[in-house]
Amino acid sequence: MNDPTLIIGTGLIGASIGQCLSAHGVEVFLSDIDHSNAVVAASRGAGVVAQPRPETVKLVIVATPPAFVPEIVVDALNRYPNAVVTDVASVKASIEVAVLAGAGDAARYVGSHPMAGSQHAGPLTAEGELFLDRTWVVIERDDQEPQAVAAVRALIEMCGAREVDLDAATHDRAVAAVSHLPQLMASLTAARLLDDVPADLTLAGQGVRDVTRIAASDVGMWRQIVAANTTAVRDQLRAVQADLNTLVDQLDDPEVVEDLLSRGRAGAAALPGKHGRAASELVSVVVQIPDTPGALAHLFADIDAEGVNVEDLNIEHDPVREAGFLAVAVTPERADPLADALRDRGWLVR
Amino acid sequence: MNDPTLIIGTGLIGASIGQCLSAHGVEVFLSDIDHSNAVVAASRGAGVVAQPRPETVKLVIVATPPAFVPEIVVDALNRYPNAVVTDVASVKASIEVAVLAGAGDAARYVGSHPMAGSQHAGPLTAEGELFLDRTWVVIERDDQEPQAVAAVRALIEMCGAREVDLDAATHDRAVAAVSHLPQLMASLTAARLLDDVPADLTLAGQGVRDVTRIAASDVGMWRQIVAANTTAVRDQLRAVQADLNTLVDQLDDPEVVEDLLSRGRAGAAALPGKHGRAASELVSVVVQIPDTPGALAHLFADIDAEGVNVEDLNIEHDPVREAGFLAVAVTPERADPLADALRDRGWLVR
Repeated sequence: MNDPTLIIGTGLIGASIGQCLSAHGVEVFLSDIDHSNAVVAASRGAGVVAQPRPETVKLVIVATPPAFVPEIVVDALNRYPNAVVTDVASVKASIEVAVLAGAGDAARYVGSHPMAGSQHAGPLTAEGELFLDRTWVVIERDDQEPQAVAAVRALIEMCGAREVDLDAATHDRAVAAVSHLPQLMASLTAARLLDDVPADLTLAGQGVRDVTRIAASDVGMWRQIVAANTTAVRDQLRAVQADLNTLVDQLDDPEVVEDLLSRGRAGAAALPGKHGRAASELVSVVVQIPDTPGALAHLFADIDAEGVNVEDLNIEHDPVREAGFLAVAVTPERADPLADALRDRGWLVR
Repeated sequence: MNDPTLIIGTGLIGASIGQCLSAHGVEVFLSDIDHSNAVVAASRGAGVVAQPRPETVKLVIVATPPAFVPEIVVDALNRYPNAVVTDVASVKASIEVAVLAGAGDAARYVGSHPMAGSQHAGPLTAEGELFLDRTWVVIERDDQEPQAVAAVRALIEMCGAREVDLDAATHDRAVAAVSHLPQLMASLTAARLLDDVPADLTLAGQGVRDVTRIAASDVGMWRQIVAANTTAVRDQLRAVQADLNTLVDQLDDPEVVEDLLSRGRAGAAALPGKHGRAASELVSVVVQIPDTPGALAHLFADIDAEGVNVEDLNIEHDPVREAGFLAVAVTPERADPLADALRDRGWLVR
């Protein structure tokens, strides 16, 4: 598939896709309402900033913020009569409804969602490997042309991602639970910190930092995501509301509190670990790290010397003291030998 | 202060205190309802497993789970007539009320709370440096003997911690916001994951992992903590409930959603960063890390070679793909030179 492709919206996702396709020899045209975005993307190898002849375009990828996607998809279906049109927004059902309502013929439209990104934004941070081995959801509909789905499949393959087929409602319910709800819960928790006198915040440890980290994300983007997935997000919030109401009403009942804590523990354990490995299959070796240059390099050199691969890593922060603990997760059979070896090498291992 | 000290409860906190005091030449007696706990603590230098002569004891430190603290404190005030009695539970007001009600004379009782610990438990993980530079809250009351407060102050000093004086209600309100509420919010979020089909969880990214990490904590301990701080925790939950009700009712109103997201963003930014530095004062250099032994050692060696100190570190997990990104936070003036230097050394820096 070296057919001309147009990418509309050249932020992190659009520019990164452009790099993938360009690396595969695809002729990529870049377009962005903010022209300098497109130029920066082009300078990073994502394609050329130019308008293709409409009838030559074979694939249009809409990578704008979600609020603008339906209109741009409909416009692209009209403007590029021979093109398959996809989008990469993180919500799908409301976009699908709007596109089907607005387009004369939507058989060439295939919604999709690469599960990739970062807290960073913009083409400066783009990289062609962003999607490697990532899940990329393809939204199936009965009315799609088979060759339209095939074109999106080829795109996913060129980006090195793994295709997962879902219908739009299933996708939106899943991301409401694993992405949109956690975002709002982080915001709800962090919003409470504003009511505290600053001195109280000196009592904050690592737990509250973890829970509230993503509350620092971009407000405008998240407002759009929530607006585009209101139904599924509200279902999640209502389920939390029910649990929370029970908790507030019966906080004096240890069994009610224990029930929630237990369900939370089981839910946390249900998340797949790194590379699909369940977190529970890893064991942490906790090592004290002095807050001095060289300490981490020394530690990792020692771990390497033992031939052990680090599967996961958590630094346990400390707002005050000048030392930290690093939880080094390894496969279970490696944990005891590694702990012993590090102790022998002079590390304080807990 | 080399006076005989009795530690009741030799888990992580009790055993670690024992190590601090023993290192300062204090004669430490250890007691635990689980005798093997006390023995393990003793084997790690926390003191001796023996019963002191009651009238010789000058300080009793109650380091049991919170539910048992009031009864043990009252008993200790009676049994050790010349001793100052403190406890280290993470809730204070309900314990204070129970102790004042149960004790004939509580002037020798000074509640306290070292802000230290970890997701690990038990004396095996104890270490004398656990409290170094940590906040250790001392609970002030008008009826306390000055020398009782002085004895707890000496304890804190020997542990290398930093004293913060609060009344019990202020303490409990602060930890309800920065510790107990985040714990329950993590549980509420994680509990929702149980309702999802496992396939949906493959869409989970780093955000939900951060938000739900502490949901994996010990259920029994947290049930006790919540039970002992019901009033302050309920106040926090009710404030969240009000925000959540508004959000559910008006989720279609972008301004309501934006208001919550904005307050959350401000709350997250209000948390002090490492060593009291505001997180916003640090800049992250994001480096791609291959998932192979040696890569981290190589990276940290390169950072060291540039003479840059790593202020914070976040590994960005990836449930699927075989590469990761490390966000290396440094002081702002270091960020650009470090990024350039790492690129020159062949790293993929975003």
